[in-house]
Amino acid sequence: MSRRTSTTPHKKNVLGEPPDRRQRRSAETREQLFRAALRLFAEKGFAETTVEDITNAADVGKGTFFNYFPSKEHILIAFSDMQLSKLQATVDQMRARPEPMRSFFRAMTLRMTEEPSKSPDVVRALLQANLSSSSVRSVMLERSARAEGLLTQLVQIGQERGEFRRDVPGLELAQVFRQTIFGTLLMWSLHGDASLSDRIERALEILWLGLAPRGGVTQAGSES
Amino acid sequence: MSRRTSTTPHKKNVLGEPPDRRQRRSAETREQLFRAALRLFAEKGFAETTVEDITNAADVGKGTFFNYFPSKEHILIAFSDMQLSKLQATVDQMRARPEPMRSFFRAMTLRMTEEPSKSPDVVRALLQANLSSSSVRSVMLERSARAEGLLTQLVQIGQERGEFRRDVPGLELAQVFRQTIFGTLLMWSLHGDASLSDRIERALEILWLGLAPRGGVTQAGSES
Repeated sequence: MSRRTSTTPHKKNVLGEPPDRRQRRSAETREQLFRAALRLFAEKGFAETTVEDITNAADVGKGTFFNYFPSKEHILIAFSDMQLSKLQATVDQMRARPEPMRSFFRAMTLRMTEEPSKSPDVVRALLQANLSSSSVRSVMLERSARAEGLLTQLVQIGQERGEFRRDVPGLELAQVFRQTIFGTLLMWSLHGDASLSDRIERALEILWLGLAPRGGVTQAGSES
Repeated sequence: MSRRTSTTPHKKNVLGEPPDRRQRRSAETREQLFRAALRLFAEKGFAETTVEDITNAADVGKGTFFNYFPSKEHILIAFSDMQLSKLQATVDQMRARPEPMRSFFRAMTLRMTEEPSKSPDVVRALLQANLSSSSVRSVMLERSARAEGLLTQLVQIGQERGEFRRDVPGLELAQVFRQTIFGTLLMWSLHGDASLSDRIERALEILWLGLAPRGGVTQAGSES
């Protein structure tokens, strides 16, 4: 078991690669703790996992944990920060190089769910921690509001371009979009069947065109 | 604290009213245990609530619990049985007296979420129990499959009538519909803001017509 004191903890951007070796090693330790924690949350549940379980699994001294994460809850915050960074990067990319909204939303969602799709257990653990702990929930709600704000901006750009319906405020469309994704994650994590990406593609296809027949007749599935 | 030995436990239809007094009293006790348990799950969490907490809150002897429910998990099963009975009754009613699918699905969903809408805490507790306990999950999955089957039948009737799109199998439409409802329940239970019925109405309105503009232009919100 190797004990290291960390240099500067990297609070943001877990997947970032700092340039010098000491920093890189520190980022690696943080990543190890992060991965070990997610694995244990999935196996044992969030509440049942101790910091010592995490440091044992990551093969570092117990105290090391707190150089990187002030508490166990901060692992979940790091996860949502990682997701938010991905979302922000995707929005920036969209602004720099516009593409049709439908294919953009599809690619963005598949990218955002790439990490969760690796394990229904991890998704269950994350949802469960949000549902059970009010301290986790309050921190996550702030991240959730930021994600909702970013998505609303995107939808509004789409509305201006005539690629989203305009008779409903952008915020409402963004909320329903997120509810669809989270509902899909929830049901998939409970059933654990099929691939998450297949479920997401189907859900988005139906959400895009709706449940009703177009013009009262059967429409051809229009791919964009 | 009154101790009663139960007559016949009423395994199905918690809200049913048996005719004679002894049976009625027994149904009342079951209902008291059921309500007390849901209240405690919401307050303390499912895992943290003991059978004794429930019998204390319902003001009956501890042993009485097991005359009505073989285990704490059976409270959740009773909840989903109640929901399934409601769904079955709604489907029967639909068969007896056809009405437009859109308004039918709206009314059915509002009816099904009437009970959960009383408390975001109860919804969180129910979702959490499903996410955390594999024994709860496996029993609930069987109920979930039955609910999915009933909804698929309804969607297929709607497809035959030309009231649902036909280019996607009924099962897929039913799954996406459920994911939307559960996603709405999840997000509402985490945020605890606004009314659940408002959120559901908005989600269904958007799911019905889709996110895309109709015919490339802004459509009027068509109410059915």
